[in-house]
Amino acid sequence: MHRFFLPFDCFSGKRVTFPQKTARQIRNVLRLKSGEMVLTLDNSGHVFEVQLQSVELKNTYGVILDKSKVDGEVRIFLSLYISLTQRDKMEFILQKGTEIGVSAFIPFISRYSMVRDILMTASRRARWERILKEAAEQSERGKIPLLNSTLGLDQAVEVACTEHDVCLAAWEEEGENSLSQVLSTVSEKLESLSGKARIALFIGPEGGFTRKEVQIFHDNGVQTFSLGKRILRMETAAVVAPALIFYALGELNPSEQA
Amino acid sequence: MHRFFLPFDCFSGKRVTFPQKTARQIRNVLRLKSGEMVLTLDNSGHVFEVQLQSVELKNTYGVILDKSKVDGEVRIFLSLYISLTQRDKMEFILQKGTEIGVSAFIPFISRYSMVRDILMTASRRARWERILKEAAEQSERGKIPLLNSTLGLDQAVEVACTEHDVCLAAWEEEGENSLSQVLSTVSEKLESLSGKARIALFIGPEGGFTRKEVQIFHDNGVQTFSLGKRILRMETAAVVAPALIFYALGELNPSEQA
Repeated sequence: MHRFFLPFDCFSGKRVTFPQKTARQIRNVLRLKSGEMVLTLDNSGHVFEVQLQSVELKNTYGVILDKSKVDGEVRIFLSLYISLTQRDKMEFILQKGTEIGVSAFIPFISRYSMVRDILMTASRRARWERILKEAAEQSERGKIPLLNSTLGLDQAVEVACTEHDVCLAAWEEEGENSLSQVLSTVSEKLESLSGKARIALFIGPEGGFTRKEVQIFHDNGVQTFSLGKRILRMETAAVVAPALIFYALGELNPSEQA
Repeated sequence: MHRFFLPFDCFSGKRVTFPQKTARQIRNVLRLKSGEMVLTLDNSGHVFEVQLQSVELKNTYGVILDKSKVDGEVRIFLSLYISLTQRDKMEFILQKGTEIGVSAFIPFISRYSMVRDILMTASRRARWERILKEAAEQSERGKIPLLNSTLGLDQAVEVACTEHDVCLAAWEEEGENSLSQVLSTVSEKLESLSGKARIALFIGPEGGFTRKEVQIFHDNGVQTFSLGKRILRMETAAVVAPALIFYALGELNPSEQA
């Protein structure tokens, strides 16, 4: 069944009114007819089964027949701090990270970041938020990940450490700690949060982090870890590392097993 | 230091002669000079430190100063059986899978495969092998993954089960077994192989596997597993699943810890 995240004000009692853009998609692209069923989501973790009542372009609405909690959300809130990079790589990371289960994306700029525009234009934000929404619909998530403003690395570390229970950074020169070792050092803390932990994960630019930046991590309690002996591209690491964390913490089990 | 995989016949005693294409890259693109160092690999897991002696276009050679075993290879031989799909996705999977540590790629065609050309043209094979080689150089691997001919699913399952110790398939409708559960059922077998296991992993097309195809898996001992509640795109699953397997089997530790 087709899935649509809709703004809060589209829901009124049992009735769901579709915004014009979604209405056009329902009518002209998907060619759905009155009487057919779709799923709508309110971005707070609920999914509504809606029977279409009218598919006129300026008047598309339906009635809610059932409501349930979305099963597809990760319990852990994982914030992915990613070095700003070329547009195609950024968009790749936003799409794949959403599928994997990332809850928030925070671009940052460090010494070797490929792209250094700290200001996110409105059109760029709109485009990236559309990618997040479409990936959330496709992967059957209950919430669209957040997209934060771009930060400098110092500020990103400060925010991450304030707002998260555990802070991690993938570092290709880390010679001691694997991800599993680092996670084992925080396993008691994570268990006490019974799956509702907030984890911040830093993925650096193509040129890596400088020694000084790694020092900033260590001074602030951000634990660096290795992703193994092979050198991963930045965008590969940004997709693989969250998946490994979710796997290690039991978040990749089939439905009703978490 | 720049890394180059070279054909076997480029190595003769202490001397390494570069093929014309690599010579052009060394001279015109990288602008290396006689006296500078490069790394060459023989695709059997060895790396040679080579000092350039001559960088003439038709006569580029160097002398081996040191030889060692490449540290970057995964001990497990993982064969990735992937449904044939659009070119950009295939190339993505070949590139990222190589970085992660896949040892062989075997395209297959099943009921819902998006692309159905069972014959691989010479130009396509050449292009895909170049992607594998470049990704192996970039990620500092010691061996270029193999690219097999395309198979039908029945034949792919037969070959996989004959040539591997453990056969797995990611299946989005699997409601019982997580990857960690499936791996725990074969942990004794894997331990007895002391890290040198051969694992086959099937990743299906965008439309998934049919019930009949899943039956073929189960009849032949291919174990199906879930990648969690979120629906991953095919290319995301193809990159994430090998990484999870390597992580679970301790192959993502930093150097000298495996």
